[in-house]
Amino acid sequence: MDVLTAISQRCSIRAYKATDVEEVKLKKVLEAGRLSPSASNRQDWKFIVVKNKETRKKLAKAAFGQSFIGDAPVVIVACGTEPRTMLACGQPAHTVDVSIAFAYMILEAYELGLGTCWIGAFSEEEARKILNIPEHIRIVGMTPLGYPDQPPTQKSRKKLDQIVCYEKYE
Amino acid sequence: MDVLTAISQRCSIRAYKATDVEEVKLKKVLEAGRLSPSASNRQDWKFIVVKNKETRKKLAKAAFGQSFIGDAPVVIVACGTEPRTMLACGQPAHTVDVSIAFAYMILEAYELGLGTCWIGAFSEEEARKILNIPEHIRIVGMTPLGYPDQPPTQKSRKKLDQIVCYEKYE
Repeated sequence: MDVLTAISQRCSIRAYKATDVEEVKLKKVLEAGRLSPSASNRQDWKFIVVKNKETRKKLAKAAFGQSFIGDAPVVIVACGTEPRTMLACGQPAHTVDVSIAFAYMILEAYELGLGTCWIGAFSEEEARKILNIPEHIRIVGMTPLGYPDQPPTQKSRKKLDQIVCYEKYE
Repeated sequence: MDVLTAISQRCSIRAYKATDVEEVKLKKVLEAGRLSPSASNRQDWKFIVVKNKETRKKLAKAAFGQSFIGDAPVVIVACGTEPRTMLACGQPAHTVDVSIAFAYMILEAYELGLGTCWIGAFSEEEARKILNIPEHIRIVGMTPLGYPDQPPTQKSRKKLDQIVCYEKYE
């Protein structure tokens, strides 16, 4: 599938079939993260693959009851392992780097027919407890991963002239 | 081009031909950003397209003399327009959202045969002055965009078992 086709067709999935995700597909999704660029190629990230049903349900609860997270057969939790590193431009390197990797993973999932939904609304403290994540590690996001049990629902986007300007900020 | 092919083959480009980027290709790159997901579909981002040679050279200087930035025919500067918004998990929404959009843009550029290099090493203050960017807007990153004038140079990556764990953090 072409890159721009995947980008334009992918949407968040909030209903999942119980069908397992094939190992070969899960590996491809993880591979997309593994191969992503990062500042100075540091790759200071860790991806936790959760299949245990009880753990998934706990994560859904930590995400303020978004139950579809627990319904999906897999949840992937994306962590930055060196959260104190800052880019010279003033942005936290781990947030940028993990976001790139996770963006590539959810796009690759779509190419494979799998649904995802980037979750940023969760209690980091609760998720940390559930997954035994040390204090010095930051969780950047998580996503359920599985076969969609809903039709795609495209959200509207701003027009190009609302988000692009030329030569100077306008 | 398949998504995983693009992810696995794309690399940072630090030498550019003077050849112009076709408008239809530039639009596709911007479209990739426009169509990206963001928290609550807020799309609080702005992409500044810089073609002016003098401005490009100033940006290269603001990026501590990375002169290839000025050599590329286009520089795209990615901004978060609501940088105070935080995700419930504790991450700055603008950093996550702009990183996703910019990640998709550099991947689409690769699909089109164009080179990019995600730049996080620059003085935000200097870049802000050059582009008249207001104080309350944050610059997340910038990239040159143009035809590569170097062979691809793949960087090594960590192995999957170094960056993936199962069920709990390890």
